[in-house]
Amino acid sequence: MTTKTITVVRDLLATNKQAAAAIRAELRSRGILGVNLLSSPGSGKTTLLEALADRFRGRYRLAVIEGDIETERDAERIRAKGVAAWQITTGGACHLEARMIGKVLGDVPAEIDFLFIENVGNLVCPASYDLGEDVRLVLLSGPEGDDKPAKYPQAFLSADALVLTKSDLLPYLPFDPRKAAAEAQAIKGTLKVFKISALCGDGMDELAAYLVDALERLRSGRA
Amino acid sequence: MTTKTITVVRDLLATNKQAAAAIRAELRSRGILGVNLLSSPGSGKTTLLEALADRFRGRYRLAVIEGDIETERDAERIRAKGVAAWQITTGGACHLEARMIGKVLGDVPAEIDFLFIENVGNLVCPASYDLGEDVRLVLLSGPEGDDKPAKYPQAFLSADALVLTKSDLLPYLPFDPRKAAAEAQAIKGTLKVFKISALCGDGMDELAAYLVDALERLRSGRA
Repeated sequence: MTTKTITVVRDLLATNKQAAAAIRAELRSRGILGVNLLSSPGSGKTTLLEALADRFRGRYRLAVIEGDIETERDAERIRAKGVAAWQITTGGACHLEARMIGKVLGDVPAEIDFLFIENVGNLVCPASYDLGEDVRLVLLSGPEGDDKPAKYPQAFLSADALVLTKSDLLPYLPFDPRKAAAEAQAIKGTLKVFKISALCGDGMDELAAYLVDALERLRSGRA
Repeated sequence: MTTKTITVVRDLLATNKQAAAAIRAELRSRGILGVNLLSSPGSGKTTLLEALADRFRGRYRLAVIEGDIETERDAERIRAKGVAAWQITTGGACHLEARMIGKVLGDVPAEIDFLFIENVGNLVCPASYDLGEDVRLVLLSGPEGDDKPAKYPQAFLSADALVLTKSDLLPYLPFDPRKAAAEAQAIKGTLKVFKISALCGDGMDELAAYLVDALERLRSGRA
């Protein structure tokens, strides 16, 4: 990169960090847990949110901000579950930025418990952008291969928890979830790991409990 | 994006285009077909190259440039097939650029037929960077979902052919290859489509024939 490019990127990230800090302060003051979901395209982010919508219905209130380069599809899937959703289409940009979240935040109802943000499907660029969330989940599906954490380290380093998705496909794949988990935890020792199938329900109790615990800690000021 | 950011990005792309044109001219003068492979992480780019190495052995000579953010893993897999491979680790950058290829090009043997370039696993950013290739393949695996072309249009618009991978997993997936192909061809009508399993061999004859035909057209000046 040229010096000029490096300066512009550094300025962008500094501006983003300020916007993210303001969002985090606002969400905490409202008692809302912000959760940012990162992964490659097709790792199961939207399907996980659909499953959480079903699981939390009547107990916790959620809202979802969807990030995609094009189409309103993911927001439509979430709305079909009776959950409020906003679609941000980046029109080419490879990640969400905090200012994009800031523009939507005023419309998000005050009485929700969880604000999920589904990032653009990309295991690289979104890792560098804080969106003001309190929990960052990185998803890795079995079909992607257990060699991915070391190849895309920043996403795993920046996350609080790794969610290994599509466990129902494991019988048909050369994927070792223990290897994937060990490789990710070699990058970040404190990373929590969950193995789930959003379609079959496997592991969803543990993941939901983790999110509820994080919400309770935020509200009791232990975040 | 700020005006400053837009200017820097435009300058980067213009510089890249010049470098790519020089690479394309050199590859054509040597009679080598450059092939750039784009996809999400884990769509099967390296596995496809391993299968092509086996299939072309003794008939066509190949070399591979591997792009990854970190690790030498993919180049090691290719070398294990007896094929010359160079690993470019971008150290964080989300795509390969032509100047990175240019640095390696002097080391690539003159007598090869195909130079495959495996881009960083990312369905977004690599689409904007011409690497001097004559054929661009975009891979989409069944587990990623048949709704991806419209969500990541640039990758499909910029490609010459769509390779639907991991067809051996189709019995276990809610994936309709015809839907994926139709959606991609709605973005680019001239896009060729291949459905393959690099592991089982399904569709590999057709894809190999397409590549050999492109090589022959390049050498006869019909590229």
